[in-house]
This record gives sequence, structure tokens and C-alpha cells, in this order.
Amino acid sequence: MKKLINGVDNVVDEMLNGMIAAHPDYVARVPGTEVLVRTGAKKTDKVVLISGGGSGHEPAHGGFVGEGMLDAAVAGAVFTSPTPDQVYEAIKASECGKGALLIIKNYTGDVMNFEMAAEMAEDEDIEVAKVVVADDVAVENSTWTTGRRGIAGTIFVHKIAGAKAEQGAGLAEVKAVAEKVIANVRSMGMAIAPCTVPAVGKPSFELTEEEVEIGIGIHGEPGTHREKVSSANATVDQLLDKILAEGIYNDGDEVAVMVNGMGGTPLSELYIANLEVANVLAGKGIKIAKTIVGNYMTSLDMEGFSISLLKLDDELKALLEAPADTPAFTQK
Amino acid sequence: MKKLINGVDNVVDEMLNGMIAAHPDYVARVPGTEVLVRTGAKKTDKVVLISGGGSGHEPAHGGFVGEGMLDAAVAGAVFTSPTPDQVYEAIKASECGKGALLIIKNYTGDVMNFEMAAEMAEDEDIEVAKVVVADDVAVENSTWTTGRRGIAGTIFVHKIAGAKAEQGAGLAEVKAVAEKVIANVRSMGMAIAPCTVPAVGKPSFELTEEEVEIGIGIHGEPGTHREKVSSANATVDQLLDKILAEGIYNDGDEVAVMVNGMGGTPLSELYIANLEVANVLAGKGIKIAKTIVGNYMTSLDMEGFSISLLKLDDELKALLEAPADTPAFTQK
Repeated sequence: MKKLINGVDNVVDEMLNGMIAAHPDYVARVPGTEVLVRTGAKKTDKVVLISGGGSGHEPAHGGFVGEGMLDAAVAGAVFTSPTPDQVYEAIKASECGKGALLIIKNYTGDVMNFEMAAEMAEDEDIEVAKVVVADDVAVENSTWTTGRRGIAGTIFVHKIAGAKAEQGAGLAEVKAVAEKVIANVRSMGMAIAPCTVPAVGKPSFELTEEEVEIGIGIHGEPGTHREKVSSANATVDQLLDKILAEGIYNDGDEVAVMVNGMGGTPLSELYIANLEVANVLAGKGIKIAKTIVGNYMTSLDMEGFSISLLKLDDELKALLEAPADTPAFTQK
Repeated sequence: MKKLINGVDNVVDEMLNGMIAAHPDYVARVPGTEVLVRTGAKKTDKVVLISGGGSGHEPAHGGFVGEGMLDAAVAGAVFTSPTPDQVYEAIKASECGKGALLIIKNYTGDVMNFEMAAEMAEDEDIEVAKVVVADDVAVENSTWTTGRRGIAGTIFVHKIAGAKAEQGAGLAEVKAVAEKVIANVRSMGMAIAPCTVPAVGKPSFELTEEEVEIGIGIHGEPGTHREKVSSANATVDQLLDKILAEGIYNDGDEVAVMVNGMGGTPLSELYIANLEVANVLAGKGIKIAKTIVGNYMTSLDMEGFSISLLKLDDELKALLEAPADTPAFTQK
């Protein structure tokens, strides 16, 4: 294993501190925790948004802490759910009287630990609401999941619910718009090459020089099947077919698109994939209002990508276009 | 070779069109060329900035076309200089009477072809100035270079000269500030694993499971030496030592830092490297005013990174902090 690290036990700690060193005006670490919060005085007047999960998905989730998106992010060990006490620390460090929304990707450990943290907070009379993102259409249950997995579509929840909270909405309203995003976002991914968890030291699965894995999860969990490598367009078509089969995205609809890199795939290839996404959607009369291309919900050094579609209405579109200013996503 | 492409002959064309499909409000293609310009009506009142080079370095350079940075970017074939006529097309498509500054990375082919394009433009009475970026301290001459190579430090030239041009400065002033950046920026990179040029179909060099290459170029050109893989900190220290040996960055100075990914290295590892950069500079009394971490000047799917330091004065700092809004770099 060749990695740019200083030892498998320091990866998360040093990654968090390196992010803070890069963006001191954006993020700060809650002392003694793996929690990042916004730099500066605690807010006094907004619903706070908290997300997180295992590390290894950078910039998710610490990179999305900032104006118009998250208030706190909790980093577990690599590909490991954060503990309830860490999530509770994030709630305590950020919540300011209007309640906290926990944005959870659907993995059994994450759901359980965020729920336990919510109970701890409620015992302290902090109002907490939860949403669970399960946007991955590849498989119904998987290695660490009952139901569908939560993957890159989660970023749309951060962005849109974050904008709603920034506008001063109450906890029920912010939760409602997060649920609306979840109802309208679907994703699917694939891998060309596996990732290597530092503490494991070898790839999480093996693919031959001819093979790719379709429907892969963001921890290298198995997908729907392996197949011989084909063209970018045929790969995109296959992922989109399954997303479009959900029946959510139809002629005349307006959508947002995310072409998300898994960490080891160059931007040039993501743009090539995006061109086919745009062409397929145009052919179906589906209008693209916004496209995001890049590494947003990664899987360490895995090579591959995912496609996410979000159906927009006027509310979601306006919130998606609202300003945001975070280490990993800024728009005017 | 497993890549997310549709054929080695379509890579640049589809990548450019995919970028446009993702960012139609930012970039448009000059018909019949590999030139991206800003979307919308041609400017009428500014010095225009034009950069480019071989493809394979995405988001460089098309991703930096937009407010506060470039006006046009020219994309050659992968790792191949754009032809003079393509550069000339970029000048014609963007220049609006105040002159054009060509920002050239120091490779023999790039320098020659941009210079020929400048002569073509001057024949049409378009005022053209040129700067050549040669920030890579690794080697003095190399495969495709007389003198030092131009690498990630070029992004600082785009940003700072771009801000100067946006403020209405004349061509001589914009060129002068670009030269000031070039005089004060130094970079050095390394690779853990090679890149594969699509048309070649195999890695551009070979490293064993234990080896890394120090001082690598952004086309996989040989660096200073190969060595056994060590820690992130030891690697950073080695690159920084060579950069600091330039004598430019001293106790009390203020700098900007870029930790640039080569395309296949996860953000988590870049942040780990950044932590050591911050620690080393703090130990030397060098203050960091701004840090940029991510994939900005890549080398296809190469795994590795580079460090760039830019010494700031009040002018450079203000221009670096000025707003920018492009597909790959936005700040408020």
C-alpha cells in the first residue's frame, strides 16, 4: 500500500487538522472530538444542520460546513460510523435554541448512532429532528444497510436544507424540505478500480484489468454485478437507465445533476460522463437546471463515479441556487 | 487500460463539451476550435487573459475561465501543445481592444506556439503580451523544457493577474503583476503512481509497490530521483526543503500555499500533506495568508501532489483575495 499518510492510526486526526489548517476561516475543531463546526461564535438564530459518518468520503462532510450548508460534521474512523457521543458533541457545539436536523446516510451503524445521540440531546431538552438519505438505486439491501444506501445525493440535502435553515426557517420546515429532496433524488455508481482502507492495507475488492463493478457502494460494497469494461457512454446509459426507471424524472421535468468522482478518477473523465448524461436527458425532454461535477462524496482512492438526479420544483431550485460558502462548495 | 472514455480520439472534444454542458453559464466553445471563452457577449473594456496547453491537466485551464480569472483557454491534445492557430483563435475570440496577456507554462512547444500566435495577432494590430511560468524547482531542464517547468503555480498567475485585469488595469500593469507572481512562486511535486495517456494505453512510467518519484513533472516526466515510499511528512519536508532553498520565503514573510492533487490522490491525503506544510512554515516563522487544497493542475489519473508557495505583498494578497467565479474556483 502506497499512500500519502503518516500511519494508519493518524489518518482521520491529521486529515481534520489539515482541513482546518487550510480553511481556518471556515472550520474549527471541537476540542477533544472529531467534530468540525463553523469558525467563530456559535449562531444564535438558526436551525443547525449536522451530518457526518465514516471518514474516507472527503470532502464529505467537513468540507460542507459553512454558510448555507452544514453547521457541524462528525468524522468517524475510516468507513466506520461515528459514535453516539461524538454526534452528541456536534449537537451540543452547534445547537442554539432552534433545534438541530441530523442528516444521516442510510447505514445501519450511522442510523443507530445518530438516533442514540438524538436521544441524548432530547434528554437535555434540545429539539432534534432526523432525516435518512437512501438515494442509491443499485441495491435494496447491502453489506451495512437495511434498505437502500445513502450516497452522493446527500450533498443536495446539505445544500438545499442548509439554504432553508439559513433563511430562518423552523425545524419542521427545514426537515420538510430535506425530506422533499430525499423523495426526489436518486443515485447510482460504478467502480473501475477499488479503494484501499489504510488500516487494512490492501484493496477492498479485486477487479481484473478488464472488469468494472456496476452499482458499487461508497465503501466498496458489492454492487449489482461485474462486467467487462465498456465505453463511458454505455456505462452512463446503464446507470441512468436504472435511475430513470424509478419513474421520478419525466419529459418536461427540471432536474439537477451531480456527476460525482469516487476520488481517483480525473475530472476530464467525469466531464466526458457528464456529456452523455446531458445528451440522454435532453433526448428525454428532461431539462437540466444545474450540474455539479467533481469529487464530493468519495471513497478514498477508488476510481469510478456516480450519477445523481434531483427533480426540482420552484422551491428546491431557488434553494439550490442560493449562495453557499464552504471549503468544498462555494457559489455566489 | 481502464478509463471512462469513448475512444482515445474523442477525449478532448468530449471533455470540453462535457464541461460546457456542466457550466453553460460560465464557458462556451468557439465553434470549430478547442477554445473555451466566457459565456455571453464579448467584453469591451478589459485586458483579456488567455492560457492553455496540452489537455490532461483538468480543471486547468478551461475550469478557470470566468470572472476574475481567465477570458479564454486553449486545449491541445492530451499532453500536447495547442497549435498557433488555436491560440490565435482564442485571442481573436476574446480580445476587445485593451490587449491580451498570454500566460504560458514553460514547455518548449507551448512557448513556441503561443509566440507564433502572438505574432499572428500583432499582424492584425492586436496588442499581445506574454509571461512564461517556470515555477517547478525540481529540475533545471527536462524532457520538454529548456529551463524550469511551469506547473501548479500557474494557477496563482491566473488568479492574481485575472483580478488585476478585472479591475480595469492596462496591459503593462497586468503583465507586471503576473511577472511579480512568477518571481515569487515556486513549486515541486511527486508521484506515487503514474498516469496513462489514453492514446498510449499504458502507464507513462513504472514504479514498484515500494517506489515513489520525487520531482515529477505534470506529464509524468522524470523528476530528481526515485526512492522508497516514506511518510507524508517526510515527503512534504523533502519538497519544501527544495522550495525553501530558493531563499524567497523567510521568517516574517507572508505566503499563499497550494497543495495540488495530481488527479488520483484523495483529498484526505492532500489535507494530511497540508498539515505538515502548515507545521513546517509555522516553525520557520512564515505566515500563511491563504491555502488552496485540491485538484487544480492535474496529470490525468496520476497519484501524487505538488506544493506551491507564493510570497505575498499587500498588492498580491489583495488580488488573491478578490472575488472569482469560475467552474473550478469560486470565492466571494
